[in-house]
Amino acid sequence: MPSKGVLYVNMAEKLKIIPLGGLDEIGKNLTVYEYGNDIIVVDVGMGFPDNDMYGIDVVIPDVSYLIKNQSRIRGIFLTHGHEDHIGALPYVLRDIHAPIYGTKMTLGLVQLKLEEHNLKADMRVCQAGDVIPVGRFTVEFIHVNHSISDAVAFAITCPVGTVVHTGDWKIDPTPISGGMMDLTRFGELGEQGVLAMLCDSTNVERPGFTKSERSVGDSFDALFRGCEERIIVTTFSSNVDRIQQIINVAARYGRKVAVSGRSMENALRVSTELGYMKVPEGTMVDLAQIKSLPKRQICIITTGSQGETMSALTRIAFSTHRQIEIQPGDRIILSASTIPGNENAIGAVINELYRKGAEVVNERSNNLHVSGHACQQELRILHALVKPKFFIPVHGEQRMLQTHSKLAQSMGMSPKNIVITEIGKVIELTKDSCKVTGTVPSGKVLVDGYGVGDVGSVVLRDRKRLAEDGVIVVVMSMSHADGSLVSGPEIITRGFVYVKESEELIEELETLATRVLTECEYRHMTDWTNIKGAVKGELSSFLYKKTKRNPMILPVIMEV
Amino acid sequence: MPSKGVLYVNMAEKLKIIPLGGLDEIGKNLTVYEYGNDIIVVDVGMGFPDNDMYGIDVVIPDVSYLIKNQSRIRGIFLTHGHEDHIGALPYVLRDIHAPIYGTKMTLGLVQLKLEEHNLKADMRVCQAGDVIPVGRFTVEFIHVNHSISDAVAFAITCPVGTVVHTGDWKIDPTPISGGMMDLTRFGELGEQGVLAMLCDSTNVERPGFTKSERSVGDSFDALFRGCEERIIVTTFSSNVDRIQQIINVAARYGRKVAVSGRSMENALRVSTELGYMKVPEGTMVDLAQIKSLPKRQICIITTGSQGETMSALTRIAFSTHRQIEIQPGDRIILSASTIPGNENAIGAVINELYRKGAEVVNERSNNLHVSGHACQQELRILHALVKPKFFIPVHGEQRMLQTHSKLAQSMGMSPKNIVITEIGKVIELTKDSCKVTGTVPSGKVLVDGYGVGDVGSVVLRDRKRLAEDGVIVVVMSMSHADGSLVSGPEIITRGFVYVKESEELIEELETLATRVLTECEYRHMTDWTNIKGAVKGELSSFLYKKTKRNPMILPVIMEV
Repeated sequence: MPSKGVLYVNMAEKLKIIPLGGLDEIGKNLTVYEYGNDIIVVDVGMGFPDNDMYGIDVVIPDVSYLIKNQSRIRGIFLTHGHEDHIGALPYVLRDIHAPIYGTKMTLGLVQLKLEEHNLKADMRVCQAGDVIPVGRFTVEFIHVNHSISDAVAFAITCPVGTVVHTGDWKIDPTPISGGMMDLTRFGELGEQGVLAMLCDSTNVERPGFTKSERSVGDSFDALFRGCEERIIVTTFSSNVDRIQQIINVAARYGRKVAVSGRSMENALRVSTELGYMKVPEGTMVDLAQIKSLPKRQICIITTGSQGETMSALTRIAFSTHRQIEIQPGDRIILSASTIPGNENAIGAVINELYRKGAEVVNERSNNLHVSGHACQQELRILHALVKPKFFIPVHGEQRMLQTHSKLAQSMGMSPKNIVITEIGKVIELTKDSCKVTGTVPSGKVLVDGYGVGDVGSVVLRDRKRLAEDGVIVVVMSMSHADGSLVSGPEIITRGFVYVKESEELIEELETLATRVLTECEYRHMTDWTNIKGAVKGELSSFLYKKTKRNPMILPVIMEV
Repeated sequence: MPSKGVLYVNMAEKLKIIPLGGLDEIGKNLTVYEYGNDIIVVDVGMGFPDNDMYGIDVVIPDVSYLIKNQSRIRGIFLTHGHEDHIGALPYVLRDIHAPIYGTKMTLGLVQLKLEEHNLKADMRVCQAGDVIPVGRFTVEFIHVNHSISDAVAFAITCPVGTVVHTGDWKIDPTPISGGMMDLTRFGELGEQGVLAMLCDSTNVERPGFTKSERSVGDSFDALFRGCEERIIVTTFSSNVDRIQQIINVAARYGRKVAVSGRSMENALRVSTELGYMKVPEGTMVDLAQIKSLPKRQICIITTGSQGETMSALTRIAFSTHRQIEIQPGDRIILSASTIPGNENAIGAVINELYRKGAEVVNERSNNLHVSGHACQQELRILHALVKPKFFIPVHGEQRMLQTHSKLAQSMGMSPKNIVITEIGKVIELTKDSCKVTGTVPSGKVLVDGYGVGDVGSVVLRDRKRLAEDGVIVVVMSMSHADGSLVSGPEIITRGFVYVKESEELIEELETLATRVLTECEYRHMTDWTNIKGAVKGELSSFLYKKTKRNPMILPVIMEV
């Protein structure tokens, strides 16, 4: 291996990259970089539960590998402040302690999150251009554009070489704040030689370019100009530049702006305090004051772009908001894309707004939202600048990873130099090779209320069954002395049938259970597990035959 | 009221139109027409359950109004054979008996459905152009284009006037079978004078025209031409013309066709038997035979375009199909739109196909699907031809109904002549007026297994709670004589926490329940309802504080 660095590298010490989340899946991004005795972590994100994860609030990555290697962790580096990149911090920080590096905006949002959970952390504010030495790594912060302010990519260097970790990004030549992403720096790194690139694949299926954030401002202008009605706008609370544009256009047309929804209020406060948002004096008013203004001077910015049940816009639509009621003619602007799975929830809110006489303008036809991720043409530009030796498509589901691999191949990269893998796999890099060499524990840890990880597949399977057909409890007291039935069986059902209209069925069940118990006594069955099994089996097959349903049956024997 | 017909009409006898489904909602289409003592029903459709209707298979309209007026029902008229227009028949026909009128294809599909449910009905095959007298109504069948063969609109005439009921339709100048919809007849009716029109609003938000079904054939051709791999295509099984096009292109390129999935097999059988499908000889082969063919001669048509769990394509993707396994290189064509709510299920199937090395081509970028509903330009044409005096937009959610109303207004119709209403409302028409005058019972009846209507809001609320946090059963035996605790309390949980890892918590619950019971005894509480209430209350607040969860708590007292 006659490469230049050979003298300085202990060849036994390879660079390991271990994705623990965000690969072959969407959300809960977390990647581990490991060289010698040093570990750094990039992003600690959360994911949303699947439809069949009943009762689950949040999904976080399994970090048992990090817990086991706690003493080697030198730092946590955050690319930006979206939930899928920082949302698991409050849970993971219970077990893992390391300095957290991020930009001002990112750490401002982390701070908010930690306060909610009564947690503290060693946070170190960095900015694009900074190069942070941690153990034998250095981590360089590189400015990128995204749908949140102050997003960065990382150039992570260790003796094996430099890895470019893009985080989420797009190229916006006319952003609202902060300038175009630092293509020059990516190009310089490419000239110096990049060992590998881990690159965002979210929009790899879309041809062309993602539009500039600024183009949405033009759409707002057209909708505010000449409008005599109240205007209510909803968008993602983390999209500070979008909110800035709404405030700008409101001010331009003489409207005051009020805000509704906790996350929107928080975002506005943090971004104003940190200087990411500039609000023209006298523009913001309290929600309580807005009523006294004429319609044409009112603009309300709310949460609820995904139709979330408790969000401000949903409450406004369904008349459960304390301060705002829909008035006929209100112009409601939905400035957000629909996250897959939320179509019906958003549809219900839109229908209700229409029903109350509002005018709803949404994204589809009006250029009211632009993505924060690079499309094919942007991806090609970055590949051409960075020219990595090895390519690891990340931040996407299988179909996106494969499409991204094809895109790289279409630019001349050999498929041998592309690694598509999944979470928990150990990718080992030398100067000349990049391959999967092992596996560490990984997966989904479910958060339900205060419980982290105490709901697993068994509990979920029970919840699914309970959800679909309900529960039937069969209680009986039996004599400790001779195993005879002392009282019962009593039948209690929930979620099965409407009991008042099904008394006959319940009686049939009691009769059947009694018959089974009599038979057990007759056969001198004394093992209560067997007796419970017999009751369960008979009731279950009777019910399936009669109702084609399969409720959970819980026989309980009280020994007296 | 100096209208021409005044001499012949008993003015007390108005035409009533009562939508019992499909208005201000999607699905379960059913409309009642009533004149004097005569009632006719148009369509008897089913709907799909909302996300929070746990365990529900199908939703059907509440037809108690029809049951009450059974003796006056002269006929059921079906516009076409889609589930949302015929799917509730097996349930509704248990209570309602009337001749069913429909075209050959529609009744063929109804027949299949009734056989599955062991039901029989008086079915009368009609064709476009037929005029059926029923009571004082006549119903004329008019040919329209849609995404299923043999769809019709109705011109429903009674002494008050003629109502055009469009059903689902689009204008396809180059359909695969049956010719363009009968615009001439709509025009003639318009010339003669149409009292009111009830018109499909599904695609009213889309500008322009829906593309011809034939255009999809060109896309198939491009994907079959020169392909050396196996081709697997999925589409809606009811779209006979689409299946015909797949078979045609397969035959053109020397491929044999096999079919997988019960509904696809049924659709193929019915449509071939009834002459709606023409299969070139020697093209169809059994699924078992297909393995022996070279890849380039294989085409498999499957169910599963919506990612349904048990469908053929899902089973193929996840390797649970008995006869078909994905081979690297397989070309999978998804020729269907995504019904909102199914995004994630379809996404999971696509990712799994990619993971196994298949190439997936889907609708988005490849013109592999066209809608069956009219877009704005087509709607304008029909409005211009029919020129109804009154307009009732139907078949759509609130936002579509209102958009359709605006479209009609943009063509000169007065808003006073447009009625937007909801199910259960009685729309009363005279020659000069159209207004809502009353309400009849209406709503959603839930079907769960064999049970029709035995699951209502109470049961659903319980299922939701069980799904989210599980159930805790607290059982105790108490003395009949003095109310003292004989045995227990015993705690059983399901769907709450993983019991083996939470023994401590369960013990805490037992201790707490015992304390509550002791206290009850000390206070001489003897009413068991109160005792149960106390146990429930204490456990509930303890658990919420400790876990932030709210499981269903079921205290059971056995009297011994």
